[in-house]
Amino acid sequence: MIIVTRKGVTQEELDHIRERIEAEGLRTQVSRGEHRTVIGCIGDEERLQGLPLLSIPGVAEVHPVLKPYKLASLEFAAIRTVVPLGNAKLGGEEVVVVAGPCSVEGLDMLRETARHVASQGARALRGGAFKPRSSPYAFRGLGEDGLKMLAEVRAETGLPVVTEVMDTRQVDLVASYADVLQIGARNMQNFSLLTEVGRMRRPVLLKRGMAATTGDLLLAAEYVMSQGNPNVILCERGIRTFESATRNTFDLAAIPVLKRETHLPVLADPSHAGGRRDLVAPLSFAAVAAGADGLLIEVHPDPERAFSDGEQSLSFAEFEELMDGLGPFVAAAGRTLGEGARPAAAADPSA
Amino acid sequence: MIIVTRKGVTQEELDHIRERIEAEGLRTQVSRGEHRTVIGCIGDEERLQGLPLLSIPGVAEVHPVLKPYKLASLEFAAIRTVVPLGNAKLGGEEVVVVAGPCSVEGLDMLRETARHVASQGARALRGGAFKPRSSPYAFRGLGEDGLKMLAEVRAETGLPVVTEVMDTRQVDLVASYADVLQIGARNMQNFSLLTEVGRMRRPVLLKRGMAATTGDLLLAAEYVMSQGNPNVILCERGIRTFESATRNTFDLAAIPVLKRETHLPVLADPSHAGGRRDLVAPLSFAAVAAGADGLLIEVHPDPERAFSDGEQSLSFAEFEELMDGLGPFVAAAGRTLGEGARPAAAADPSA
Amino acid sequence: MIIVTRKGVTQEELDHIRERIEAEGLRTQVSRGEHRTVIGCIGDEERLQGLPLLSIPGVAEVHPVLKPYKLASLEFAAIRTVVPLGNAKLGGEEVVVVAGPCSVEGLDMLRETARHVASQGARALRGGAFKPRSSPYAFRGLGEDGLKMLAEVRAETGLPVVTEVMDTRQVDLVASYADVLQIGARNMQNFSLLTEVGRMRRPVLLKRGMAATTGDLLLAAEYVMSQGNPNVILCERGIRTFESATRNTFDLAAIPVLKRETHLPVLADPSHAGGRRDLVAPLSFAAVAAGADGLLIEVHPDPERAFSDGEQSLSFAEFEELMDGLGPFVAAAGRTLGEGARPAAAADPSA
Amino acid sequence: MIIVTRKGVTQEELDHIRERIEAEGLRTQVSRGEHRTVIGCIGDEERLQGLPLLSIPGVAEVHPVLKPYKLASLEFAAIRTVVPLGNAKLGGEEVVVVAGPCSVEGLDMLRETARHVASQGARALRGGAFKPRSSPYAFRGLGEDGLKMLAEVRAETGLPVVTEVMDTRQVDLVASYADVLQIGARNMQNFSLLTEVGRMRRPVLLKRGMAATTGDLLLAAEYVMSQGNPNVILCERGIRTFESATRNTFDLAAIPVLKRETHLPVLADPSHAGGRRDLVAPLSFAAVAAGADGLLIEVHPDPERAFSDGEQSLSFAEFEELMDGLGPFVAAAGRTLGEGARPAAAADPSA
Repeated sequence: MIIVTRKGVTQEELDHIRERIEAEGLRTQVSRGEHRTVIGCIGDEERLQGLPLLSIPGVAEVHPVLKPYKLASLEFAAIRTVVPLGNAKLGGEEVVVVAGPCSVEGLDMLRETARHVASQGARALRGGAFKPRSSPYAFRGLGEDGLKMLAEVRAETGLPVVTEVMDTRQVDLVASYADVLQIGARNMQNFSLLTEVGRMRRPVLLKRGMAATTGDLLLAAEYVMSQGNPNVILCERGIRTFESATRNTFDLAAIPVLKRETHLPVLADPSHAGGRRDLVAPLSFAAVAAGADGLLIEVHPDPERAFSDGEQSLSFAEFEELMDGLGPFVAAAGRTLGEGARPAAAADPSA
Repeated sequence: MIIVTRKGVTQEELDHIRERIEAEGLRTQVSRGEHRTVIGCIGDEERLQGLPLLSIPGVAEVHPVLKPYKLASLEFAAIRTVVPLGNAKLGGEEVVVVAGPCSVEGLDMLRETARHVASQGARALRGGAFKPRSSPYAFRGLGEDGLKMLAEVRAETGLPVVTEVMDTRQVDLVASYADVLQIGARNMQNFSLLTEVGRMRRPVLLKRGMAATTGDLLLAAEYVMSQGNPNVILCERGIRTFESATRNTFDLAAIPVLKRETHLPVLADPSHAGGRRDLVAPLSFAAVAAGADGLLIEVHPDPERAFSDGEQSLSFAEFEELMDGLGPFVAAAGRTLGEGARPAAAADPSA
Repeated sequence: MIIVTRKGVTQEELDHIRERIEAEGLRTQVSRGEHRTVIGCIGDEERLQGLPLLSIPGVAEVHPVLKPYKLASLEFAAIRTVVPLGNAKLGGEEVVVVAGPCSVEGLDMLRETARHVASQGARALRGGAFKPRSSPYAFRGLGEDGLKMLAEVRAETGLPVVTEVMDTRQVDLVASYADVLQIGARNMQNFSLLTEVGRMRRPVLLKRGMAATTGDLLLAAEYVMSQGNPNVILCERGIRTFESATRNTFDLAAIPVLKRETHLPVLADPSHAGGRRDLVAPLSFAAVAAGADGLLIEVHPDPERAFSDGEQSLSFAEFEELMDGLGPFVAAAGRTLGEGARPAAAADPSA
Repeated sequence: MIIVTRKGVTQEELDHIRERIEAEGLRTQVSRGEHRTVIGCIGDEERLQGLPLLSIPGVAEVHPVLKPYKLASLEFAAIRTVVPLGNAKLGGEEVVVVAGPCSVEGLDMLRETARHVASQGARALRGGAFKPRSSPYAFRGLGEDGLKMLAEVRAETGLPVVTEVMDTRQVDLVASYADVLQIGARNMQNFSLLTEVGRMRRPVLLKRGMAATTGDLLLAAEYVMSQGNPNVILCERGIRTFESATRNTFDLAAIPVLKRETHLPVLADPSHAGGRRDLVAPLSFAAVAAGADGLLIEVHPDPERAFSDGEQSLSFAEFEELMDGLGPFVAAAGRTLGEGARPAAAADPSA
């Protein structure tokens, strides 16, 4: 921790600042400049992290030297985390595509979608049974019935299931059906929920909040990990800015930034980031080019009649086209879509 | 709902769009321009609100005519909502000051703070027993012990208690101690929690999320109200922008915007908005000048040693000075701090 | 300047970093922590400000200790700057209202508006002769004819003239008519223009850019001042965020933040900040409550027929109402609207 | 144009609104809903674009149907614009790399850099002779001497020159040396400058402003084009948001959004977008994957000693590595780096 004092700080204030730091067991080193005095705090910085140092008289700025997250940090990790997902491995060499409808609307549409996306190279099925909707009057999901359908379709297709949990009271229920527990963007700082999924054995897919920095996202991951669950998958899905041509602003740079800060796998969700069907393919290609470990794609048998997010859901034909286009970019990134997933596309990047 | 088609829309597409709208029981009226065709949808617009109209072939833009909230809307309300809070009334003529520590840290500091803020004109006590903290390693509140202290100090001072609830499982517990249930900015779109507090009889203080528009805030209020709880108090506490001189960017204009859109009371939280002790007074004065119905102020006996938010907490002397300065602005706004609250200040605006 | 190294920095890298700093004539002081090494650079920090320190191998973070502006800084100023504007003084005890049409549309409308705003307490006349418009097809001002009208109306009413200059080639021309040279938000980082107005004797009214931090605004002021023109007036007019209920997001906190960072006067422009006629009054009251030294208000004899910004221009009756409401807030802030300006309102804050 | 009235609009207001519209030569069509009345305006919408319709009593919302730009619009264009740049063609099949130092610092470094980037496949040379710098005390470029060096190196290497113009007074001068006139982000809405470069025959490279939407960028292009210069090249270089891990937030989705809205070529500037050397490669790959027509890359012989932007400038070895990695992504996108440019990389995407 480095403390910069205000101009004209008194000796008494300076002594008081040092006392406060030293009382926490750190040493201080003072450098006097012409206008400012700088106090270096040497020792266990974590002991200072809770303190309101800025409210000590004479303190003008506080610069932490350590990042506030540790379990999530690449710097302190021996190896990168690889999260198994059915036959796929998230965070390794494969680019893992997770696809499916926004909401589970019924067994038939879910089964049909799952079969289609699997045939095109998807390695896991996404689908919401509990849906966070901005309006209380919108369709909010089929609940446990939806979970049962996901499990049934998993049994039939072998695709592992990624589904959202929104409520601490539903964590056990959702975990009894799902392979991966998804935390939505609006719950990224629902700390009770983070704590609860941290107690589970299921991997957690954590979506970045609309106003969250990459640092905030890593602290949210730290919440989950600090409870004992090491399998956190991060997901960039766009942040909120002044630009209105897209639903959110896809912060593509967050992908390489996160890969440099953390050992956790990083996915991208181009469906929510752009909010427009015609942007899903270019955003997907770009995410893979920037180093994403996988993609989360919304697919629906009849987007025009989807109960939610129809604007950004791909039809079956569009998903097929996406996967056709994706192969060469995956190869260019020196990766694969996974063993057995669309071997043709992977083998012929020039197609 | 108004639908604008893309250039070159075909007659077949146009017919299909009209069929989809008319199937929902609305009438359509088509205006053909040189470049675009516009379809007005006449009838019960709510029937269209769930539909992914943008995904119908040929549709370029969709403009809703109705706001997506209704219970929260001023337009559909007979009168402005006034929420009683102890002897005070939120949303009426009074400007109600709610003050207290960020976290309840112990009984003594809480009692001492409550007595001080009451003596200076505060009408309710704030204090967190369950604290949302970005880091899992930070102090997260005293939990039920904190709630008991709040109740004890209420019994002694008569100040009603405003305290945060973070978890659906704790709503009953918190409601058994609190007079007002606070929903924090990070939970503004925790829809399970909104639904749950909507089932309670306690008023709900709903803080605006860091990436939420005023429209999103009103939809969150609609969640609570749609469950049967009409007593929602809105709170502007700053949004996230690129400006780093302040913790958040205080969206002052949200106060008059909300007062024109909704009948619900609107508070401001200058402590969180600015994140700096020295900004609490000017932001408070401005909030009152812009029409706020009350203020939420963090006060601590020794900010330098606060467990949380010390940087933005006022000392007792600073709170007194704030209230001294506030009086004339309250009077200039044609309002009062409430019967019996600092009669001197209210009586002499030129002081 | 404080340099933090990356984990595992080598001794060689460390030596190289120190050499680079010491080559600029500063001393270095090294503190080794468990994970990071911190290098304090002691001496004339300005010598380092141009260097790409982050690109030196081993450097992880660079924290400047000094602000990058000096002439604009309160810390280095003996007294606060007061800019005379006709009979008014900007930056002193008075709250100075500058009002007038967005664009000068003709002599009659300008004269009529000037007389009205003067009668209500405005101390200077605003009006654009050169207009920055987002569309090349919109009305772009009357040019020099507009300047002549401004000068004529000044001669008749005694109101000094504030008008925008957009082009380095027009600075002399505009300065030959105007009392204050306005730099618009879109030109806040037009460094050629800043340099040019810095060479003039006229005060400069500098509007904050839509993506500019308060620090950027102060650096822009420093540009002007570094050319020898000390009379810069800053103006908060809203920044761009995701909120769409208002044209911009009025960053009210910027007013007290700037007053603490600089000795220059600070105005607010509630017309552009909100972009809505009904928000001008509450934003004006709030700006004064937060410490603004003046207001910039758009007024038009017939807003519905204004050539530009009609949505946010007040009619004469609305301006009168605004000034009626403003008096008590000015008094509450311990200030006045100036000698002779609306003595009634100033004398009776409870009106 | 579609006008939505406020609830309770009177017949008189309605008549007045219609009169105003019809006075401009358009027809009106009124649809009365339960709560609102909608007025469709049929005819030449451009006649309404300047009018402050929102300030007409009774009007609640105004929805334009036409985009405010026309020359820049894909919808009204017969073919996509291809801008020749030396032997390269911007906007066609090639992905054109423009590389060079941030600032021209001297002839030797410029020549050395130009030769290196040409040898690695760059098709044009960038380099600033007039530099926009946030601080007045920073290096501001060599001016005309820098332009002469650019011309000399062009003569030696055959690389066309892209360089910035900042001042209307310098447009002729810069145009006498440069092949492409660059308008920087801070000048994107310097309308005098846009108008001036619109009168030139040189292509204009227009960088997106930090607070500009893609719509604003297209309107800025329209300014240039409306003066008779059809050769505008757009450039996405990041926008300003709350995220601080990168210098700006690279709005990758703007690339496909712009390609769908306009016929003009679209470049990306990953150096400024990320502001970090280690992010240039992933952002470049992603830009190409998303459909960019070219890249603008900062390269310096010794980034650690660069006069400006050293943090984000690639060394020669890093640029070579970038171009090695880029080839396969260019091929995956079905494009080439141009005839003769790195034939090896283009021929063997699996390398």
